[in-house]
Amino acid sequence: MIRIFVTGGTFDKTYDEIHGRLVFGDTHVSEMLQLGRSGVAVSVRTLMMIDSLDMTDADREIVARSCAQCEESRIVITHGTDTMVETARAIAALVRDKTIVLTGAMVPYAFGSSDGLFNLGSALSFAQLLPPGVYVAMNGQHFQWDRVRKNTATGVFERV
Amino acid sequence: MIRIFVTGGTFDKTYDEIHGRLVFGDTHVSEMLQLGRSGVAVSVRTLMMIDSLDMTDADREIVARSCAQCEESRIVITHGTDTMVETARAIAALVRDKTIVLTGAMVPYAFGSSDGLFNLGSALSFAQLLPPGVYVAMNGQHFQWDRVRKNTATGVFERV
Amino acid sequence: MIRIFVTGGTFDKTYDEIHGRLVFGDTHVSEMLQLGRSGVAVSVRTLMMIDSLDMTDADREIVARSCAQCEESRIVITHGTDTMVETARAIAALVRDKTIVLTGAMVPYAFGSSDGLFNLGSALSFAQLLPPGVYVAMNGQHFQWDRVRKNTATGVFERV
Amino acid sequence: MIRIFVTGGTFDKTYDEIHGRLVFGDTHVSEMLQLGRSGVAVSVRTLMMIDSLDMTDADREIVARSCAQCEESRIVITHGTDTMVETARAIAALVRDKTIVLTGAMVPYAFGSSDGLFNLGSALSFAQLLPPGVYVAMNGQHFQWDRVRKNTATGVFERV
Repeated sequence: MIRIFVTGGTFDKTYDEIHGRLVFGDTHVSEMLQLGRSGVAVSVRTLMMIDSLDMTDADREIVARSCAQCEESRIVITHGTDTMVETARAIAALVRDKTIVLTGAMVPYAFGSSDGLFNLGSALSFAQLLPPGVYVAMNGQHFQWDRVRKNTATGVFERV
Repeated sequence: MIRIFVTGGTFDKTYDEIHGRLVFGDTHVSEMLQLGRSGVAVSVRTLMMIDSLDMTDADREIVARSCAQCEESRIVITHGTDTMVETARAIAALVRDKTIVLTGAMVPYAFGSSDGLFNLGSALSFAQLLPPGVYVAMNGQHFQWDRVRKNTATGVFERV
Repeated sequence: MIRIFVTGGTFDKTYDEIHGRLVFGDTHVSEMLQLGRSGVAVSVRTLMMIDSLDMTDADREIVARSCAQCEESRIVITHGTDTMVETARAIAALVRDKTIVLTGAMVPYAFGSSDGLFNLGSALSFAQLLPPGVYVAMNGQHFQWDRVRKNTATGVFERV
Repeated sequence: MIRIFVTGGTFDKTYDEIHGRLVFGDTHVSEMLQLGRSGVAVSVRTLMMIDSLDMTDADREIVARSCAQCEESRIVITHGTDTMVETARAIAALVRDKTIVLTGAMVPYAFGSSDGLFNLGSALSFAQLLPPGVYVAMNGQHFQWDRVRKNTATGVFERV
């Protein structure tokens, strides 16, 4: 059983056609798993639904504690890309004996051409095989939390 | 570096609007990797572009030999789901020291709502971590080639 | 009020993922009208759900009689493109005092990149303004039933 | 020959994945006409690429003068929905002998599920048949410029 924690991010942005802007509604994770015909046993829970630029230390504390307290030892977290590495650090400070994989998207899933479905397939797979640790899964790759940064000019995650 | 061998299958079917039927054109794998913002170093080669129900022993021989002879030790193969397990067996009989992951799709990628992108992200990730062996990656899961079958009634791959 | 008669055609083909082929299920017309945020008062009825290459004289008789007998004087018919003109002729032989617009698609709506939504918007608009007669609305244009043919090489409807 | 003037609006918003926000790039009109397999002879020109809430009187002056000065007597204008009616009024004050149809979208075309393709098919069709005047084509319907308003609560255009 893999636990999936949803925190928002570009992954889950949708278009509010009345006000003409991007907003957060319900998560698309379950719909995406269905689209991917996923057979992985998962338990999905939304912790928050925010832009990762708006995520506070208190929010990261909630994410980290949720990872520590849940029964599952393998966890996938959907998260905005801008501060994904910061949250990974906060989790790593608290949780040491679980495999925790953060992923996200550069383009909202609700846009037809999102990288979110690719990343979700990737993150779920990495979460099944990686040893305990905190990782970022983006661009089809996995990175240890303390050896990755997002290149804000290109939008690509790089090993450091 | 991961080698990707393309053999066709539902994954790559497109709609021929002049004749009103499903056909094979060029593979969508590169477009899908771009959509997924994949940063994995890959080398894509199309071996054949056929429905896996039409795949002969000679075709499987070509796939297996291509796996044996290529330089890369990690390989992803896109393949029709109907005989994916048979091809996996043919490869396993010939190649023992490489990590080879077969994947496919239940719905053509050219259809908006395909599982192909999810499966490609998943297969590429499994191929990076699994020890040598021949595997099927479908439904977000990985199976050893001799412990899986496709349930033809549900379209889901099951452990046996 | 505009009556919409559904007869099938490429417009409504979907992909049967268990058997790997194109089939007819329920019509997508209502979903498409919702997607287009249509405010046109319509009444949708499925007469048949077949490939227009399989349409018999008896089927065309059903379509023509349905047009003659319904209350509405403005009608849109979704139809396969291959024999759309033949059906238009059968209707024109029977119905003279109504505005009847046949439309269809070259690519199934269920494929992300269909011309169906464009054609449906076009056909509904033509049906609101054209004088009594039987017309084909394809490629953003309208044609009188006896002055059009489908160019089977290009898939485009041409004035004759 | 129909002239298409592009002014921006939701129709043409795209997602800037580096900065995580909606922006204007190139227009999607030509791509949409291609998707719709449009056979209508058109000449597309971008006048501006802005949110209609940011449109000034000077901008409307440009749109109206462009309509007056172009050779074509049938014109489609893509426009944000929020001030579409205001621009229609500005055009009507200047141009009396042409058929001018404004249209737009509630959801960006770049999002998979846009009403834009439906509206474009509709607007092009209305533009071919309506007598001289300035019209709004939304929701599959056409309205004279002085008999329509956008219901900002529902996003639907209503006759007044």
